[in-house]
Amino acid sequence: MIKITLPDSSVREYESGVTGIQIAESISNRLAKDVLSISVNGEVWDLTRPITKDAAIRLHTWDDREGKDTFWHSSAHLMAEAIESYFPGTRFGIGPTVDNGFYYDIDLPGGQQLTEKDLERIEKKMLELSREKEDIVRSSISKADALKLFTEKGDELKLELISELEDGTITLYKQGNFTDLCRGPHLPNSGYIKAIKLMSIAGAYWRGDEKNKMLTRVYGITFPKQKMLEEYLVLLEEAKKRDHRKIGKELELFTFSEAVGQGLPLWLPKGAQLRAQLEDFLKKIQKRFGYDQVITPHIGDVHLYKTSGHYEKYGKDSFQVIKTPAEGEEYLLKPMNCPHHCEIYKSKPHSYKDLPLRMAEFGTVYRYEMSGELHGLTRVRGFTQDDAHIFCRPDQLKDEFKKVIDIVFIIFKALDFKEYTAQISLRDPEKPEKYIGTPENWDKAELAIIEACEEKGLRTVTETGEAAFYGPKLDFMVKDALGRSWQLGTIQVDYNLPERFKLEYIGADDKRHRPVMIHRAPFGSMERFVAVLIEHTAGKFPLWLTPDQVVVMPISEKYNDYAAKVSELLNFSDIRSFVDDRNEKIGRKIRDNELKRIPYLLIVGEKEEETQTVAVRRQGEGDKGTMEVSEFILFIQEEIKKQLTALYN
Amino acid sequence: MIKITLPDSSVREYESGVTGIQIAESISNRLAKDVLSISVNGEVWDLTRPITKDAAIRLHTWDDREGKDTFWHSSAHLMAEAIESYFPGTRFGIGPTVDNGFYYDIDLPGGQQLTEKDLERIEKKMLELSREKEDIVRSSISKADALKLFTEKGDELKLELISELEDGTITLYKQGNFTDLCRGPHLPNSGYIKAIKLMSIAGAYWRGDEKNKMLTRVYGITFPKQKMLEEYLVLLEEAKKRDHRKIGKELELFTFSEAVGQGLPLWLPKGAQLRAQLEDFLKKIQKRFGYDQVITPHIGDVHLYKTSGHYEKYGKDSFQVIKTPAEGEEYLLKPMNCPHHCEIYKSKPHSYKDLPLRMAEFGTVYRYEMSGELHGLTRVRGFTQDDAHIFCRPDQLKDEFKKVIDIVFIIFKALDFKEYTAQISLRDPEKPEKYIGTPENWDKAELAIIEACEEKGLRTVTETGEAAFYGPKLDFMVKDALGRSWQLGTIQVDYNLPERFKLEYIGADDKRHRPVMIHRAPFGSMERFVAVLIEHTAGKFPLWLTPDQVVVMPISEKYNDYAAKVSELLNFSDIRSFVDDRNEKIGRKIRDNELKRIPYLLIVGEKEEETQTVAVRRQGEGDKGTMEVSEFILFIQEEIKKQLTALYN
Repeated sequence: MIKITLPDSSVREYESGVTGIQIAESISNRLAKDVLSISVNGEVWDLTRPITKDAAIRLHTWDDREGKDTFWHSSAHLMAEAIESYFPGTRFGIGPTVDNGFYYDIDLPGGQQLTEKDLERIEKKMLELSREKEDIVRSSISKADALKLFTEKGDELKLELISELEDGTITLYKQGNFTDLCRGPHLPNSGYIKAIKLMSIAGAYWRGDEKNKMLTRVYGITFPKQKMLEEYLVLLEEAKKRDHRKIGKELELFTFSEAVGQGLPLWLPKGAQLRAQLEDFLKKIQKRFGYDQVITPHIGDVHLYKTSGHYEKYGKDSFQVIKTPAEGEEYLLKPMNCPHHCEIYKSKPHSYKDLPLRMAEFGTVYRYEMSGELHGLTRVRGFTQDDAHIFCRPDQLKDEFKKVIDIVFIIFKALDFKEYTAQISLRDPEKPEKYIGTPENWDKAELAIIEACEEKGLRTVTETGEAAFYGPKLDFMVKDALGRSWQLGTIQVDYNLPERFKLEYIGADDKRHRPVMIHRAPFGSMERFVAVLIEHTAGKFPLWLTPDQVVVMPISEKYNDYAAKVSELLNFSDIRSFVDDRNEKIGRKIRDNELKRIPYLLIVGEKEEETQTVAVRRQGEGDKGTMEVSEFILFIQEEIKKQLTALYN
Repeated sequence: MIKITLPDSSVREYESGVTGIQIAESISNRLAKDVLSISVNGEVWDLTRPITKDAAIRLHTWDDREGKDTFWHSSAHLMAEAIESYFPGTRFGIGPTVDNGFYYDIDLPGGQQLTEKDLERIEKKMLELSREKEDIVRSSISKADALKLFTEKGDELKLELISELEDGTITLYKQGNFTDLCRGPHLPNSGYIKAIKLMSIAGAYWRGDEKNKMLTRVYGITFPKQKMLEEYLVLLEEAKKRDHRKIGKELELFTFSEAVGQGLPLWLPKGAQLRAQLEDFLKKIQKRFGYDQVITPHIGDVHLYKTSGHYEKYGKDSFQVIKTPAEGEEYLLKPMNCPHHCEIYKSKPHSYKDLPLRMAEFGTVYRYEMSGELHGLTRVRGFTQDDAHIFCRPDQLKDEFKKVIDIVFIIFKALDFKEYTAQISLRDPEKPEKYIGTPENWDKAELAIIEACEEKGLRTVTETGEAAFYGPKLDFMVKDALGRSWQLGTIQVDYNLPERFKLEYIGADDKRHRPVMIHRAPFGSMERFVAVLIEHTAGKFPLWLTPDQVVVMPISEKYNDYAAKVSELLNFSDIRSFVDDRNEKIGRKIRDNELKRIPYLLIVGEKEEETQTVAVRRQGEGDKGTMEVSEFILFIQEEIKKQLTALYN
């Protein structure tokens, strides 16, 4: 008998050679149906692989990343099997999973290319093979035999991969007539894969090297149920409509210029307005929580980042050193704001009474990314963090943590993120050598985070061993309106920088002590946050936040002057408005401005000018009747005030 | 007879050989007394040098830079004469004028060093020599004779200088027993120099090269009247007290860190607060004038600056190219914001109806300066311009210019700069090849500026030939509280960048046209402006602007809680306050916070807590009586509101 420890720490005994699927069956029928793979002492295994020693296990279903990975990995093999059946002699590169689904890089014989029609055929074939519930069978093989097998198949791509593997570690997976070199794990059989959609084809150099041959990359996604696929495709359609790059262009929020450089956003007036509103909002909240704004340069001496350790981390792979024309100095674009804030901390002596110091900066940092990795505002080369560093005494950690959680809650509420979870990352207590700082301080810091989360009633998962080497942390994940998860603000405890910069305060005992630092950025970066917000709201921002709150539309040129007067009155009352005086029909103006997501559309013509009124339409709600201008101002101010009161109280 | 043309274009006839002093005498006795040197066809001459050909002249007095230069140049010779009389065998390097006075680099025989006592002796000797009214006599000398003369004197420094001169161009000036190699010009005699102060001694490498010998640099300043010297010394003392570096430190506005890098200011919380107030103020004004804020990155592709021409201007002498770790890209820290704004302009097509477009950004730019040139916030390596670019049609230039002048006036008024002048810089109409853009456009632009200034009643001087090659401009000079002049905002017309970036709009004629650009930055940069503001106000900023408006001072620890409550109420009402809860006597607290230039000091003790009141002191004015907290809030809000109303209306 062997002892199997479950995630809740309960222990069960099984015959040696028990498999994952058998363990699942022994727990519940439901679980046996849902389980896709199993972690055995931290390594993900096939459900059918015998366990012969005591082990700690976790069973993975569709709800876990590991479960999905297994599912999609087997789906890639199924696709390869289908392709091989139509195109014998196809050579197969690699076939990994991605965020949503999987791909396989293939090389069709005789330089053939796949067509849309082929994708449909392959999809059908995959469903056929799935219905046959082919077992997926793992076997170990010697390097020599592996080389022989794939030489016979004529697959030079796999041969190249095998040549780099160590003998004794090589495994094959086989289903039906298809055998693939693979580390696994896989589903027990192909019958699990019930719903299939091949998404697209792209060219990809073998091993990402443009000197190599261009292969065909086929992307697909699969699900255990047809309904899930259908929901996914609807979501995908909706996500396309909400793509922040598309909406950002429509609403003229930001643009990119090849001449300025890739991944370097230019914020257009409306985007800059939106960003300013968000910054002002956060500044106000932070002021209430005792933060001080500072401003620091966008470059720093290379030695500063050697002191901080950032040179080691970013130096080689980020923007390179900036030399001076004389005096032999060397600077770096700052990859993070913390070293500058440490230098501000050091600019004068501190007493325990001064702490905590909360130093905030909307600091723009620059980090190089490969151009292929860039994506709209979510992956850029320059971005502005809503950064702050809290310098505090160890005994202040918990309170400070709770205050940061409060700020994060205020932001989520303000921007209507209703669903969120948090992950606490702790150190691996069995590997103390991996971490800097005393065990006592770590204990204190970890307890502070755990208690702070408990006291704030936060739903958390705890991951042991996921802490940074310099301190434990808390990460927030929000779900957007489409149910997609985004990682936002991180709250990170740091023992490292105070040590590296030799930060000090004089304690009540008159001795020198090291403060602890907390890094935190609830938005993450303005760029990424605005992207998330666009996709979450589909560009329909809350009234208080949206760049243009009101458009005034004269029904003909005759009323342009009156429209301008109305707009001026609105702007004077701090309501952001403009006049649409294009020479267009009023129906067209309404349509265009609804598309621009302007919350209030005011129509003015002869009657309105005579009576000094405006005909009010609310975006998506239609006609709201006619109001005097002053009445409308009070009306919209009331709505904005209500929103702001909800935000700030 | 020769014809002498005066600056007012009038022509007078004189005998050939007439001198500057004779011309001055022929005009008025007063002028003959005040004149110090003369420009003859643009070259500054001694007053005693005969003029033998028709010439255009200008007479220089103490009020001209040229007059002062002549005066101080002769003063440097006078000092050298005095030094030689005490230290025969001294070798003399160079002795130029500086902004305030002059210096001479000398090498005393036998490695002797000057002491404070020596400076006094030399000063006295100079006054003695001045009373002797020694004539200062110019003579030409051949290179051979010059070399012989200074070889006899044993002055290797002068020999080195002579060796680099061309034969036939070498002149000497002699007064009393002292002869110096010198290009001139000089005063007629040493008697002009009535007031003398030797300021300081410093070490300086011969010819600025640290491989050369270290010489002694003696700084001095002289005046035609004793009273002027006394006033200057008082001003100097006052300027020292107002030095923005000193006050910036006292008020904790900004700091520098060697670790971050020289010339890269770190704005501390109070400085960042001050800067934010200034930015918000200008943003509000600009919004009213139809400006749109944008945000652009701090780097750009090298090609962007090649297109703009900035690479040619800054590339070699500024921060060097930033390479990428892959993909072979090259970036530059942006030296100016205009190229980025041009790219925003190009991000969509424009019609004549869209213009003017006014694009504003508080854009931080980076330009390398030698570390020796750096000075507090007035000369830095990174600074934030209150930048904006107006893209307009040629027919809109004048109106736009007038609007910018309005903004500049609002700022001067807001910050209490009562005295200012402006300089219009026009092209040299005789050198059309120096300028880009058609003569018609230049005519239009120059007329637009001239008329705009006239219509705004601006006091201007016009300088022909001082325009940039790409357009005419208007510069503002303000006088601060000590009467010192500072150049602030420039308004620059630009035909060049629209050309280089091929900017276009579709005109009413349906054809493509080039817009004109206006560059403008009323503050210049936030750094420089804050420095000027500090020196102008001695750190006593207007109430609406100052970082901390109120300090609440409990008379003992017992009242700390009440003080905190009062401060919270103030902050809640958007009044910036803090509590001075240091364990110090109230007298000390008052003194310290007066030194920190806090406008309102509130004292709270037992009586105040009981009656929920505060004892109010106004900085520099003393006791203002006791008020209820709510009463004080209304009182200070009223004062702030009055200031803001004056600003914005």
